[in-house]
Amino acid sequence: MSISTLAVVGVGLLGGSVALAARRRGVVRRVIGVDRDDAVLHRACAGGILDEASPEVAAAAAVADLVVVCVPVDVIASQVLLAASACRPGTLLTDVGSTKQAIVEAIRHRLPPGAAFVGSHPLAGSEKNGADHADADLFEDRLVVLTPMPEVEASAVGQVSDFWQALGARVQVLGPEEHDRAVALTSHLPHLLAAALAGTLPTELDELTATGFRDVTRVAAGSPRLWGPILQANRQAVLDALARLEAQLEHFRRALAEDDRAALERMLEAGKRGRDRLA
Amino acid sequence: MSISTLAVVGVGLLGGSVALAARRRGVVRRVIGVDRDDAVLHRACAGGILDEASPEVAAAAAVADLVVVCVPVDVIASQVLLAASACRPGTLLTDVGSTKQAIVEAIRHRLPPGAAFVGSHPLAGSEKNGADHADADLFEDRLVVLTPMPEVEASAVGQVSDFWQALGARVQVLGPEEHDRAVALTSHLPHLLAAALAGTLPTELDELTATGFRDVTRVAAGSPRLWGPILQANRQAVLDALARLEAQLEHFRRALAEDDRAALERMLEAGKRGRDRLA
Repeated sequence: MSISTLAVVGVGLLGGSVALAARRRGVVRRVIGVDRDDAVLHRACAGGILDEASPEVAAAAAVADLVVVCVPVDVIASQVLLAASACRPGTLLTDVGSTKQAIVEAIRHRLPPGAAFVGSHPLAGSEKNGADHADADLFEDRLVVLTPMPEVEASAVGQVSDFWQALGARVQVLGPEEHDRAVALTSHLPHLLAAALAGTLPTELDELTATGFRDVTRVAAGSPRLWGPILQANRQAVLDALARLEAQLEHFRRALAEDDRAALERMLEAGKRGRDRLA
Repeated sequence: MSISTLAVVGVGLLGGSVALAARRRGVVRRVIGVDRDDAVLHRACAGGILDEASPEVAAAAAVADLVVVCVPVDVIASQVLLAASACRPGTLLTDVGSTKQAIVEAIRHRLPPGAAFVGSHPLAGSEKNGADHADADLFEDRLVVLTPMPEVEASAVGQVSDFWQALGARVQVLGPEEHDRAVALTSHLPHLLAAALAGTLPTELDELTATGFRDVTRVAAGSPRLWGPILQANRQAVLDALARLEAQLEHFRRALAEDDRAALERMLEAGKRGRDRLA
């Protein structure tokens, strides 16, 4: 890795984990964290997550070789552009947003010359929030999807790819639209379902939940401040995924209404085959 | 515990775990397993899960103080009645079925005098199948719901309750209908949702699933042979629970269609509150 100084903008669970993983693995020489919350920066420095803290994106970007923007998806583009306006030529910029199309479009053609942005989405996370839960192994063996614009130089894509691999991740390149359609089904719809299910649980039934309910709804503990903008940014693809699921639920509904054991077991078999394919 | 000989009918994950837990904890003197699959019985004896094996329910029930029927819900009632017809007066009978109303109704008024049936549902399990995955701690700190018929003697309910508590469980008494309505929402609907979601995943997106998708769909790996009859036996309550969830999904759909951030975050907050209440 030719990256000496890493700036992490937004020191939450993901930003903190990027910083910690980069420090622990010796991937960079220095990590500067940027956050609007001074207490977060103070704890992250004291906890060995950051080398230095800065209240200003521009100041950190000006001395960084790589800037990783780890804020909610609705403010990623503005923070990337802010960093880009202050950085030296040759600085790499990336993010960790769960949606890519809106971000890439908002950034494209607005970057100053010499700054290269390569969108990233690490398929890693947790229902926990905040850098206090930062995990140096969060990206270990996880997939990071890169969604570079066609005009970005291959060397920039390669360097961002190398960075994630140095944190333990595998890397795959997809178009932003293809990425968003895929994660609508594999991540955003499951989150919506979990929230819908957890939101309909009457308090008096809490005691009657077991590991099944807790597994199905675990992700619903994630931050609404993060997930609202994700669902909104990818709303058409999420609506399409929801329609697809609702068609499957309608098949279940009909099989139950018609007391059709064979149809029920067929659908359960299809679900088991789908789940058994995953490790 | 005054139980000397325990007969376990159906030596799968739950039956094997009941047997193993009872043996390991010294709750009974002898465990006899009944299964139609000789290979299962052979492995369970060799693996220390059972003391003895029997191919016949009647033979095992005739020497048992407690019979626990651990077969799929659609065949529980017939196995309980078969055991009851062969057992000595004073023998206790229970089960581990995930639905209770149909079972209790099928057994009630058909028991020979002297046999007492107390329906049980341990809210414990796994997506794994078979006694090879038996776990002596499966019931540790889990809830077992008992659904005794009003005519059953309190001492019988007390003994079945003591048995589960000796395996580490907590015990709660509910009416069978109330039980079935509750678990439709806390267990059967989540299973149906997980299966529907896992069943709609196209193979080419497998790589793009992360822990969220795996958590939400984990229970879908459960056996369709067990879950088909569960959903069927409780189909009206599951249909009601599904309608309730679909109303919530419709709220999400509308908020997405109308690009309504505030409504989305409100529903995500409701989901987070519901999930955060659970440990």
